[in-house]
Amino acid sequence: MRKMRRKGLASMAVQTVETTTTPGTSVDLGPASGLSCRECGERFPLGPIFACELCFGPLEVAYDLPVGDPEALREKIEAGPDNIWRYAPLLPVPADVASKPNLNPGWTKLVKADNLARELGVTGGLFIKDDSGNPTHSFKDRVVAQALEAARAFGFTTLSCSSTGNLAGAVGAAAARAGFRSCVFIPHDLEQGKVVMAAVYGGELVGIEGNYDDVNRFCSELIGDPLGEGWGFVNVNLRPYYGEGSKTLAYEICEQLGWVLPDQLVIPIASGSQLTKIDKGLQELIKLGLVEDKPYKIFGAQAEGCSPVSTAFKAGHDVVRPQKPDTIAKSLAIGNPADGPYVLDIARRTGGAVEDVNDEQVVDAIKLLARTEGIFAETAGGVTVGVTKKLVESGQLDPSLTTVVLNTGDGLKTLDAVAETSQATATIKPSLDAFRAAGLA
Amino acid sequence: MRKMRRKGLASMAVQTVETTTTPGTSVDLGPASGLSCRECGERFPLGPIFACELCFGPLEVAYDLPVGDPEALREKIEAGPDNIWRYAPLLPVPADVASKPNLNPGWTKLVKADNLARELGVTGGLFIKDDSGNPTHSFKDRVVAQALEAARAFGFTTLSCSSTGNLAGAVGAAAARAGFRSCVFIPHDLEQGKVVMAAVYGGELVGIEGNYDDVNRFCSELIGDPLGEGWGFVNVNLRPYYGEGSKTLAYEICEQLGWVLPDQLVIPIASGSQLTKIDKGLQELIKLGLVEDKPYKIFGAQAEGCSPVSTAFKAGHDVVRPQKPDTIAKSLAIGNPADGPYVLDIARRTGGAVEDVNDEQVVDAIKLLARTEGIFAETAGGVTVGVTKKLVESGQLDPSLTTVVLNTGDGLKTLDAVAETSQATATIKPSLDAFRAAGLA
Ligand SMILES: [Zn+2]
Ligand SMILES: [Zn+2]
Repeated sequence: MRKMRRKGLASMAVQTVETTTTPGTSVDLGPASGLSCRECGERFPLGPIFACELCFGPLEVAYDLPVGDPEALREKIEAGPDNIWRYAPLLPVPADVASKPNLNPGWTKLVKADNLARELGVTGGLFIKDDSGNPTHSFKDRVVAQALEAARAFGFTTLSCSSTGNLAGAVGAAAARAGFRSCVFIPHDLEQGKVVMAAVYGGELVGIEGNYDDVNRFCSELIGDPLGEGWGFVNVNLRPYYGEGSKTLAYEICEQLGWVLPDQLVIPIASGSQLTKIDKGLQELIKLGLVEDKPYKIFGAQAEGCSPVSTAFKAGHDVVRPQKPDTIAKSLAIGNPADGPYVLDIARRTGGAVEDVNDEQVVDAIKLLARTEGIFAETAGGVTVGVTKKLVESGQLDPSLTTVVLNTGDGLKTLDAVAETSQATATIKPSLDAFRAAGLA
Repeated sequence: MRKMRRKGLASMAVQTVETTTTPGTSVDLGPASGLSCRECGERFPLGPIFACELCFGPLEVAYDLPVGDPEALREKIEAGPDNIWRYAPLLPVPADVASKPNLNPGWTKLVKADNLARELGVTGGLFIKDDSGNPTHSFKDRVVAQALEAARAFGFTTLSCSSTGNLAGAVGAAAARAGFRSCVFIPHDLEQGKVVMAAVYGGELVGIEGNYDDVNRFCSELIGDPLGEGWGFVNVNLRPYYGEGSKTLAYEICEQLGWVLPDQLVIPIASGSQLTKIDKGLQELIKLGLVEDKPYKIFGAQAEGCSPVSTAFKAGHDVVRPQKPDTIAKSLAIGNPADGPYVLDIARRTGGAVEDVNDEQVVDAIKLLARTEGIFAETAGGVTVGVTKKLVESGQLDPSLTTVVLNTGDGLKTLDAVAETSQATATIKPSLDAFRAAGLA
């Protein structure tokens, strides 16, 4: 299954190279020195390619990182802007990225969640990394910002993606500010609210008659066709750069903890890319000497209705069998997660786990987090908080250790999930007698 | 009209004093030294009162501000946290406020809006102060955070308000995190989405059978009754403290401009409190020597369907005649704005103006801001951007000067306003031929 998918991607990648890169052109993406194949290690020059020509493995960004003087690097970062560009020396972006027009995402709050910790019985320090504070209120702003800089470097003029939600708005907003044309593809029957959130930025928004798979297939065709020349698909031909944005979550968490690695992290799994890139970011911080090397455990969180990685983890498998998603956690509903096997590797290597919760537990967890910390999370945040609760109860997560739980999106985007159970406590006539009778004083 | 309103408030205020303050108790609210009447100047000790016993004028917080060493103060602020508590030395909060559980709002982005500036013909630098980045995505988090600290200082255990929107969620979230009980009163027929946003934090949410005026009348009764003992109504008996939160917008704007006053500010008007407190904040910065004294102009922005202050300004009146609101900008729909006369004073004193735009212009302005800067504003942000456009066109706003426009809330909260005109560009079959035919490549 994985092999087939890769073969398809690789043939597109080759076409893309032929149509959009100019040999000999050097692009400035800061410390990024090239692309390397995650499977066979083969190196490629920086360009809008995403799969290895030799083995069809996924490509990722390779760096010449500024090793040698961690103290100087730490000072430089701390003196940087209050957004992801403080980490520009570690990202595939030009050094002057902060002066270019973009949405400047990141540097979101790391909230010490003492009330939630008490309810869950966590004593070693519990933190919520709350990415609902990003410009379009999901972590997607981080990854799109990277893809945008790559698109700029490669001379693309249209920013594009297929999406069923958060990504559409993130791409539309980022393109608007950066002066790119945007063209976002969605299933034609997407919920009204999501259409509005994506369309308001004024780019092209194209409804495709079909389901999300049809949208993706169409986008793949478009990338391989002259029609798509000059188009940067953030999560396809710009995917290696796009993915690097998730490293900034690792950097921020450690810096906000005082340049210390957390003991345990609970991270949602959609494609699995975010989890693998956070691990990559933590490893980089260790290599750079910005944090002291010590063990950390990475836990993956899925919704039961789309739990291919968790199922594989529990069964002891190395491969991930695709599922047909059926869950309210739609931003995590990827039935065939590309980075699933890497997630399994990381969870096992670090001594973590992958767990899932059902939709009812997701809703309960959203409300638990809101009630205890005043943070209204998207369903994906309900998944991570719910999984954290389950992992504590099962003893897989050590409550005496520092634990960071990711909330990757905003509850305003998935109001429906909690609507039924979040209603007025009472309805009364406007009188003190009526209020007294309601027993709320 | 104003006098009658005040009389009612004052009699409640006296009752509140009798039931909730203990004579001789000293409260620590940092530099706040007492309350003073905005009309007659009479001083009162810090307490949960909000109207002058002598003249029924509104009370506001008086300070012993840290004058004398602006350089030391500036350094202290810059070394502070990335939220409003960096300004704790200038706010009615204890010095250790940053260590208490609250939502830590503020330090939102000041976005240099070059694309929008080009479209509007502004050449002197145009900035959007984007308060949609606050924890519950409106500026209300700033004011509620102040009220919460006052409530803590006065020993209140329930945080309350009447609301039709943003305030309900801000109070619910802040109370949840701080460990307060919350009880929020809303009209019983509020839109479902807004009910959910307020209810999800798990506090009491009481629907009142009546309109918003009925809700307010009921809350006033409750404050004057033993039933309401121990209750802090953020925008009634805690109003003097609550209002001070808006000063932080002035502080942040100037600090983010490099400790420089902007030449022109465009601020939305609901009750008018925010505009008057921003002016107060700017004046404080001048007095403290944190910015150089120079003229600035303050412009107020209203929706045509609720434009009592703009109407009075244009007619040259000193008093504000109440209106019955009818506009999509519901967060600004206060027909009888308490601080209207003060707004008129400030607009005239600074050489500014008060202007309004109709609902169609509000929608156009929301989409203009989204299309140019990737910022999706609430209807109130559409009002300020729309008014800015109108003021440039009429020559009242000087395009060669530095201008800061406030966006006080998030477009996700008022999706309906733009839904009709924000739809897919095209709907096509998933084929390259269909895409080619649509003419979007
Ligand atoms: Zn390879
Ligand atoms: Zn007075």
